[in-house]
Amino acid sequence: MAYSEIDNKAVNTIRVLAVDGVAAANSGHPGAPMGLAPLTHVLFKNFLRFNPKNPEWFNRDRFVLSNGHGCMLQYVMLHLYGYPYSIDDLKNFRKLHSKTPGHPEAELPGIEVTTGPLGQGISNAVGLAIAQKHLGARYNTPEASVVEGFTYTIAGDGCLMEGVASEAASLAGHLQLGNLIAFYDDNHITIDGDIKVAFTEDVLMRFESYGWHTLTVENGDSDLQAIHDAIVEAKKVTDKPTLIKITTTIGFGSKIQGTHGVHGAPLKADDIVAIKEKWGFDPSKSFDVPQEIYDLFAKTAAKGAAEEQEWNALFEQYKAQNPEKGAELQRRINKELPADFEKLLPTYSPSDPAVASRKLSEIVLSKIFDGIPELIGGSADLTGSNLTRTSDSVDFQPPSSGLGDYTGRYIRYGVREHAMGAILNGLAAFGGIIPYAGTFLNFISYAAGALRLSALSQHQVIWVGTHDSIGLGEDGPTHQPIETLAHFRAIPNLQVWRPADGNETSAAYYQSLVSKHNPSVIALTRQNLPQLEGSSIEKARKGGYTLVEVENPDLIFVATGSEVSISVDAAKLLKTQGVNAAVVSLPDWFTFEKQSEEYKLSVFPDGAPIISVEVMTTLGWDKYSHEQIGINTFGASGPYKDVYKYFGFTPEAIAEKATKVVEFYKGSTVKSPLKKAL
Amino acid sequence: MAYSEIDNKAVNTIRVLAVDGVAAANSGHPGAPMGLAPLTHVLFKNFLRFNPKNPEWFNRDRFVLSNGHGCMLQYVMLHLYGYPYSIDDLKNFRKLHSKTPGHPEAELPGIEVTTGPLGQGISNAVGLAIAQKHLGARYNTPEASVVEGFTYTIAGDGCLMEGVASEAASLAGHLQLGNLIAFYDDNHITIDGDIKVAFTEDVLMRFESYGWHTLTVENGDSDLQAIHDAIVEAKKVTDKPTLIKITTTIGFGSKIQGTHGVHGAPLKADDIVAIKEKWGFDPSKSFDVPQEIYDLFAKTAAKGAAEEQEWNALFEQYKAQNPEKGAELQRRINKELPADFEKLLPTYSPSDPAVASRKLSEIVLSKIFDGIPELIGGSADLTGSNLTRTSDSVDFQPPSSGLGDYTGRYIRYGVREHAMGAILNGLAAFGGIIPYAGTFLNFISYAAGALRLSALSQHQVIWVGTHDSIGLGEDGPTHQPIETLAHFRAIPNLQVWRPADGNETSAAYYQSLVSKHNPSVIALTRQNLPQLEGSSIEKARKGGYTLVEVENPDLIFVATGSEVSISVDAAKLLKTQGVNAAVVSLPDWFTFEKQSEEYKLSVFPDGAPIISVEVMTTLGWDKYSHEQIGINTFGASGPYKDVYKYFGFTPEAIAEKATKVVEFYKGSTVKSPLKKAL
Repeated sequence: MAYSEIDNKAVNTIRVLAVDGVAAANSGHPGAPMGLAPLTHVLFKNFLRFNPKNPEWFNRDRFVLSNGHGCMLQYVMLHLYGYPYSIDDLKNFRKLHSKTPGHPEAELPGIEVTTGPLGQGISNAVGLAIAQKHLGARYNTPEASVVEGFTYTIAGDGCLMEGVASEAASLAGHLQLGNLIAFYDDNHITIDGDIKVAFTEDVLMRFESYGWHTLTVENGDSDLQAIHDAIVEAKKVTDKPTLIKITTTIGFGSKIQGTHGVHGAPLKADDIVAIKEKWGFDPSKSFDVPQEIYDLFAKTAAKGAAEEQEWNALFEQYKAQNPEKGAELQRRINKELPADFEKLLPTYSPSDPAVASRKLSEIVLSKIFDGIPELIGGSADLTGSNLTRTSDSVDFQPPSSGLGDYTGRYIRYGVREHAMGAILNGLAAFGGIIPYAGTFLNFISYAAGALRLSALSQHQVIWVGTHDSIGLGEDGPTHQPIETLAHFRAIPNLQVWRPADGNETSAAYYQSLVSKHNPSVIALTRQNLPQLEGSSIEKARKGGYTLVEVENPDLIFVATGSEVSISVDAAKLLKTQGVNAAVVSLPDWFTFEKQSEEYKLSVFPDGAPIISVEVMTTLGWDKYSHEQIGINTFGASGPYKDVYKYFGFTPEAIAEKATKVVEFYKGSTVKSPLKKAL
Repeated sequence: MAYSEIDNKAVNTIRVLAVDGVAAANSGHPGAPMGLAPLTHVLFKNFLRFNPKNPEWFNRDRFVLSNGHGCMLQYVMLHLYGYPYSIDDLKNFRKLHSKTPGHPEAELPGIEVTTGPLGQGISNAVGLAIAQKHLGARYNTPEASVVEGFTYTIAGDGCLMEGVASEAASLAGHLQLGNLIAFYDDNHITIDGDIKVAFTEDVLMRFESYGWHTLTVENGDSDLQAIHDAIVEAKKVTDKPTLIKITTTIGFGSKIQGTHGVHGAPLKADDIVAIKEKWGFDPSKSFDVPQEIYDLFAKTAAKGAAEEQEWNALFEQYKAQNPEKGAELQRRINKELPADFEKLLPTYSPSDPAVASRKLSEIVLSKIFDGIPELIGGSADLTGSNLTRTSDSVDFQPPSSGLGDYTGRYIRYGVREHAMGAILNGLAAFGGIIPYAGTFLNFISYAAGALRLSALSQHQVIWVGTHDSIGLGEDGPTHQPIETLAHFRAIPNLQVWRPADGNETSAAYYQSLVSKHNPSVIALTRQNLPQLEGSSIEKARKGGYTLVEVENPDLIFVATGSEVSISVDAAKLLKTQGVNAAVVSLPDWFTFEKQSEEYKLSVFPDGAPIISVEVMTTLGWDKYSHEQIGINTFGASGPYKDVYKYFGFTPEAIAEKATKVVEFYKGSTVKSPLKKAL
């Protein structure tokens, strides 16, 4: 493949468009697009498999711009290739409600994952590569490879400094993901200036230590052939991911190229004029694309469209020859759950024994794992504590390890919570997979950066957060969540379940499985919980319901998880004292909020004071209650019953507080906390 | 130094005590102590400088057990050396309110930092080593080295898989911290079993890529001399941190040594008997320490006490010869701020121009930086955005870099937020330093694991979180905090400031500086804010106050940061419509909660509906308000004024909502939300 003048013209067109876009917005990052235009041109023209007319073509290669601040580059490429991005869209860069926001967002055509927060994209790419590998291993036949291809990602110095990327890269090396090719944009510049102020490690040596194949392109500014050759080399190594270090000049072409002055601010007007003149563009015009460039890009786009046609034919043939597998893959691509999957979910009655909800979660998983093959499990090295691995699982491992193979559906993430979160996002973004993974609830906080992006990007991922409170006992305050549920409940678009028994645990999984556009956290106990009188999957699926109904109650308890049964016992105790208490279980605020006003008011009616009971921060509970029982300090190390008692979470202590509350509100008109003007 | 039979006996005594402690608790981790007893014995006996009679001796070496779950090892060492840990304390391991909780906590004697959450300890150690290096560079004279020594840390596979540790190790290599020696407990076992399921990288090569010196000890189970020799070698290399990989057998001596069965559960009774018999201990006794072992350890303890005596004399001499420096160092060791430092804080009046609060923060820093030399600044590669570096700062850099030296007080953390958080904790834990550091508010979430430990460990660290809302504009929802303040407010023992103007920014710094036992986050705007009529440092120092007072108000706004001035404008608008609105500014909930009930009720009185106004989640605001104006979705990319308008944060839109609220509550008795039974 020879590169000629037209390719240089294409590269400069990309650069100039990016410069114009940032200038029009008067905000953004011109430097990275100018430096990376040669790489993206070579990659998109001759390697990346995609069809602009169908950005969702399942068997496309995946491309992730991990340094998402350089997204003007991506928007320009998408425009030039004929994705649904017009020149006006480029002009509207960083404007409110434009198709070209300040960082690329997964819901936009041609954008695989939302990037910008550094380190996430390359870690998502590991997830995309795992998904590709797994689905290929599961569905390809000797006659037909229906899932194949590569995941390409570009990462800058910033991404590679982030710990999440280190974790993900180490795992990618371990997993021998030969279908992952990462480009390290070695431009020496970050916001603080030259990287020598903070980042002097040997990046290639580090990636070699992870088990990666590494390559170098000395001149990424203009040596298109060297870029091409490196990618060819990278694709040859099938049992290792490859990192290609490509030395570029940030803001190539600008008067201040190679400085951090071109990183995050528009170029000056005279600089833009000089650039256009130098490269033969009319300096009086902006957003001006030579027709020959459109024509050049259209050829590649047509090739991609033809490739999809071929694949469509292949897939039809595959489905005819492999009806069961074919239907299953089609169903997964369509994001449809297996028919009647909900019949697999276990139900319980009060005579069933008390069981820890992490164990109830394991029971759910063991019932549904075979029937829902899109479930891909894992844990951050807490498998035996999280109970996330069903007994007949196979590990997702390189076959040479002797520990599993790529058809395996259980990922050993290692002690890498943040990368796990980012990889979950990649798995979900690929399609055909519903990933779930476990750690202690408290340590999901290590992955807060990734969890937030799950919610923002509407990825269906399921976090299994066990040891969900002071109830974990001896491990003490370093491991006991206090702020955690408030933090998660405050994240938009996130289900945060804390089931109280077996039926509620089944409901939590049900809602997590059917909700295709949001992630879920399921908080689960280490300690045993009784099966409650009055619970059911159906009721719990509403996110909240009255568990213990009482006519004209004197007070209402609202609790979650392990505190529901304690509240029920407190209510029984109060009854002997002539106080009638109802009990509401509220396992997921997010789902409850989706119910009708009428329903919500039936659960939290006027007339009686409502007391929340949860062994965590009380922050947020004023929304549903007049009074709160919680813990606004850190926890304590000790056997869990001692710790519960110390913090006042016994039926007796709660009943005593409740009595005070009833006394306090006696004679006043008590209004539902849900009744508001706004 | 030759090791003899008595040393082996000492090692086995440590092992047996740890086994007994875990057995008594019926909970805990015997494996790591049994594997690491030889290393800790050699280290404590012949290298670590400490005085058990004064655990706080300033010039001690620092020791961090990063794999904090192995803390029974540390408690045993502290007991044997005569720190205030009795045999009964060991017997009370993991009991409620014991001196020996499930993971080591910084407030306990002889424990430098709280560990347990993996990856934190080794990262804290980087902070401790920086502190040592810095204070030595600043205070040592050719005649007297008053701050010197080493930081030693032990980390297991789990710690080294964590991204936070990768970030910190990369920075430690860059900074050439020759006073940092880390031991990698290479025991091949994590909770999921053999590390080959997830962790097959070449750890030493990785650390070499970071610029570390690396060494290997093949037989960490019994070759005391090899351990000794490695530490001697490590100490010789003064311009690189050293990682010593020490291969050990987890649970050494147990029937199931070398398996994950010994990791996190007590050994079986017959196993314990066999261990004691094998090593010549009476199997019928528990917690039985031979007197000769106490005697052996007492010798080292006496040596440490003598070393402190020597140092005390040296320091007295130093203070006499260097009165100014000596007094300053003594003051810093005593954690006393310079007299009258508060006079350095800038004040403002309404005629002063509108300024972004990140800029107001820079002004504060520029005023106080010279006068408070214990302030050590930094940023995660956002210096020019966070405005955290005063113009005459020197970077903390290895002198050979030509970019600064070790007297420098500004740390270039690189894009490593989580390590930055953990290093801040180490800096604070060392003493004599008040560290502050900047990143975008949203990306403090990357460091949630470390921030939580700041609060739990009561470290005085100051986070400068700029670009604190949708007001950052074009960067869009990936960068715009929504859940962030609710998350932080839910963390116990954490100040969360969001100042509204210059006086409030000064107040935020004042409180952050005088509060020695909690961390602070200061949330600051990118956009300009006017100087408010009615604000003052004194009022804002209460955490909340009535900014716009109105007699018998029809409603009260409560707002923070950038929404205070908008609320003031909304109140003005309402006044023209005959509605009297008061405005409360509530820059820090934590500090406000410390005020008297009377004061709090004066700010949030009965009689008028209260509306909160903040461009974030409304979660939590019911505590102080009847109605909430906020954002319960993610943000949007666009020029900030457009974004504010879109989300309804203009005086007009707020006034309109306020009118509805007044209407809704008309005729009802409105009670202060602070009036509660509990």
